[in-house]
Amino acid sequence: MTKLEATLDNIIETDRKAEEAARTRQAALTKPAGSLGDLEELSIRIAGIQRRADPVVDPGAIFVMAGDHGVCREGVSAYPSDVTPEMVLNFVAGGAAINVLGRHAGARVVVTDVGVAYDFDKSIPIYHKKIAKGTKNLAAENAMSREEAVRSLDVGIEVFEAELKAEPFGISATGDMGIGNTTASTAMASVFTGHAVRELVGRGTGIDDAALERKIGIIEKALALHKPEGADPIGVLSKVGGYEIGALAGVILASAAHQVPVLIDGYISGAAALLAQAISPLSARYMVGTHVSGDSGHSLMLDFLGLKPLLRLGMRLGEGTGAALAMLICSGACKILNEMATFESAGVSEKE
Amino acid sequence: MTKLEATLDNIIETDRKAEEAARTRQAALTKPAGSLGDLEELSIRIAGIQRRADPVVDPGAIFVMAGDHGVCREGVSAYPSDVTPEMVLNFVAGGAAINVLGRHAGARVVVTDVGVAYDFDKSIPIYHKKIAKGTKNLAAENAMSREEAVRSLDVGIEVFEAELKAEPFGISATGDMGIGNTTASTAMASVFTGHAVRELVGRGTGIDDAALERKIGIIEKALALHKPEGADPIGVLSKVGGYEIGALAGVILASAAHQVPVLIDGYISGAAALLAQAISPLSARYMVGTHVSGDSGHSLMLDFLGLKPLLRLGMRLGEGTGAALAMLICSGACKILNEMATFESAGVSEKE
Repeated sequence: MTKLEATLDNIIETDRKAEEAARTRQAALTKPAGSLGDLEELSIRIAGIQRRADPVVDPGAIFVMAGDHGVCREGVSAYPSDVTPEMVLNFVAGGAAINVLGRHAGARVVVTDVGVAYDFDKSIPIYHKKIAKGTKNLAAENAMSREEAVRSLDVGIEVFEAELKAEPFGISATGDMGIGNTTASTAMASVFTGHAVRELVGRGTGIDDAALERKIGIIEKALALHKPEGADPIGVLSKVGGYEIGALAGVILASAAHQVPVLIDGYISGAAALLAQAISPLSARYMVGTHVSGDSGHSLMLDFLGLKPLLRLGMRLGEGTGAALAMLICSGACKILNEMATFESAGVSEKE
Repeated sequence: MTKLEATLDNIIETDRKAEEAARTRQAALTKPAGSLGDLEELSIRIAGIQRRADPVVDPGAIFVMAGDHGVCREGVSAYPSDVTPEMVLNFVAGGAAINVLGRHAGARVVVTDVGVAYDFDKSIPIYHKKIAKGTKNLAAENAMSREEAVRSLDVGIEVFEAELKAEPFGISATGDMGIGNTTASTAMASVFTGHAVRELVGRGTGIDDAALERKIGIIEKALALHKPEGADPIGVLSKVGGYEIGALAGVILASAAHQVPVLIDGYISGAAALLAQAISPLSARYMVGTHVSGDSGHSLMLDFLGLKPLLRLGMRLGEGTGAALAMLICSGACKILNEMATFESAGVSEKE
C-alpha cells in the first residue's frame, strides 16, 4: 500500500456521539441557548472531528508549502518568480505576515520547499522536499508528471506526520507561497467546480486589467489543451496544478486521517481543498472554513466545499494568514465549551 | 467643571500624521499592497487614535457594567431579574463566557455594579457603584432622574480612569449585564437613529412572538409617554435608559478622552455608543466596530455610527464577548504593523 492509499484508508466519518455530547454541554452553559452563534457550532464540529466532547486545539501548526510555476513566463503575475525563494527566506527569518500571525495565534509555522526554483542552503530550518525547480509551463505542456503529482501529495503527508510525531498539535492550517499559483489554482478550481474561468479568476498579487484578460486566456487555453477531468484528480494536478498545491492537499488528507481539524486558508488553499475533496469526499468533513478573500471566485470555491468562512476581512495574501486568525476563533470556541460554568454549577436561574 | 465636562473637553480629533506614518509603513511591508485588507485599515485607525505610528493594544481591559431594569415587570425578558446578580457572581468566579474569552484575549474583565437590584457582599472584587436597585419602570415613569443619568456616565469615567491608573491598557471594550436591557436599548436607539421600534427590536435572550409584540408595544408606549429628544441625550438616558448603558457611554467617552481605542460590543453597547456620540460626536472616531449580532436592528445602529463590524458570527450574548474576540483581531493588526519585515530589510523584490 502506498503512503497515499494508507492515508485515504484512515479517513472515516466524524464522531456524531462526541458532537452530541458537545451540543448537550453547550446547552447547559450559563448563556441563552444559541447566543454564541457560530462559535457554538464550531466547537461542536471540532468535537466531532477530534472524537471528544472536550476538544483542545492549542497549539496549532501552520503548514506553508512553497513552489514555483513555469507559467510565470507567460506574464501572469505582478511579481517576479525570485520572490518565492526570497519569501521562504523571509519566513525563516520570522519577518513575514504569517510569522507575525502564527506567533499571535501561538502556532508554529512549518515551511517546506516542494518545488522552488532556487537552491536553498541545506542548513536552513525548512523541510527540503524539492521535487523539481518549479513546474513546467502549463500553457504549453503538463505542469508535472503523474508520479510527481503523487509525490507532491506524499510530501504533504510526510511533513504533517513528521511534525505530529515531533510535537503534537490540535489543529492544522494550510498556507502557500508560489508566484504564479493563482493561475494554477483557478484552472484546478474550474475543473472541480464546473464554474467558468472568468467567474473564478482574480487579480492574485495585483495585476491590471490587460494582464487579467491575458491570464484568463492562458488558463482557458490550457484547459482546452489538456482536457483535465475532475474524475481523475491526480490527472488534474499533473496537468494544470502546482507542487505546493498538491502538498497542501496532502496536509488536508493527513489531517483527516489523523482526526485533526484543518483550517483552509485562501484561494490557493481552496484549490488544494477541492483536490483533496475530489480524492476523498469524506476529507471535507475535517475542513474548517477560515475567511473569504478579496479575490472573486474564492467564495464560489467555499460554497462548493460547503465551508462557511469565519472571517470576512478582505484579506488576499495567502501564506496561511487568514487561517492563523481563524485559529484564534477556533481556540476561543473550544475554550467556551471546556471552561464555562453551567447553570447548575454557577447557581444561575434558567429561562422562565 | 464636572467630571463629565472635563472628559468632553479632552476629546480631540484623532492624529492624521500618525495615520499617514502607519499607512506608509504598511506599504513597505513584505506583502502586496492592500493584501491584508481590513487589518491594514484597522492598524492605521488605531495609530491615529493612539497618536503613534507603532500602536500597541495589549493588554486590553473589558468593562462590564451591570444594572437592573424596572421594565422587567412588564414581562419583556425570557429570564428573571435574579439572573443579573447571579451572573455578576458568575463573572467574579470566572465562569461566564466573557471570563473565558477575556482570558483568551489576554484582557482583564472589570465588573461594576451600577444598578443591580441586589445587595452584594462588599468583599467581592467588583466596583461597588450602585446608584439604585434597578431603574424605575420606563413604561410608566422616567427610568431615572437627570442627576442619576449624569451619575451613571460619571461611574463609567471613574472606573475607566481608576483602572488606567492601576495598570495601563492599550484598548478598552464595553460589555453589559442586565436583564431587560435590550428594551431600554431599543428605545434609546429609536430616538437617536430615527428608525422605528419595529425595525430595531430583537428577541434579546430569546422571547417568543407574542412577547416580542408586547415588547414593541411597551417601547412605543414609553416613547409616546416620555417624548425623549435626541438633542437632549441626558434626557433620553433618564427617560428610557439604564444605569449600565449610561456607564458604558461613560467608558466610551473616557476612552476617547484618553486616546484609547474602544471596542463596541453588541446591541446594548451599540445603544451606549449612540448615546456617547450624541453627547460628543467626535467620540465616534475612537470607536471600533467588533461584530454584528444576531439581533435585527443591530446593523442599523452600526450603520448610523459608521462602524464596520470585524466579525459576523451570529453572536448575541453581550457581556463584551464579541469585543473580546475582536480584540484579538486588533492586536494581530497592530503586530503586523510593528513586527513585519519591509521589502528592503528582508531583501524581497518589489512589484515589476
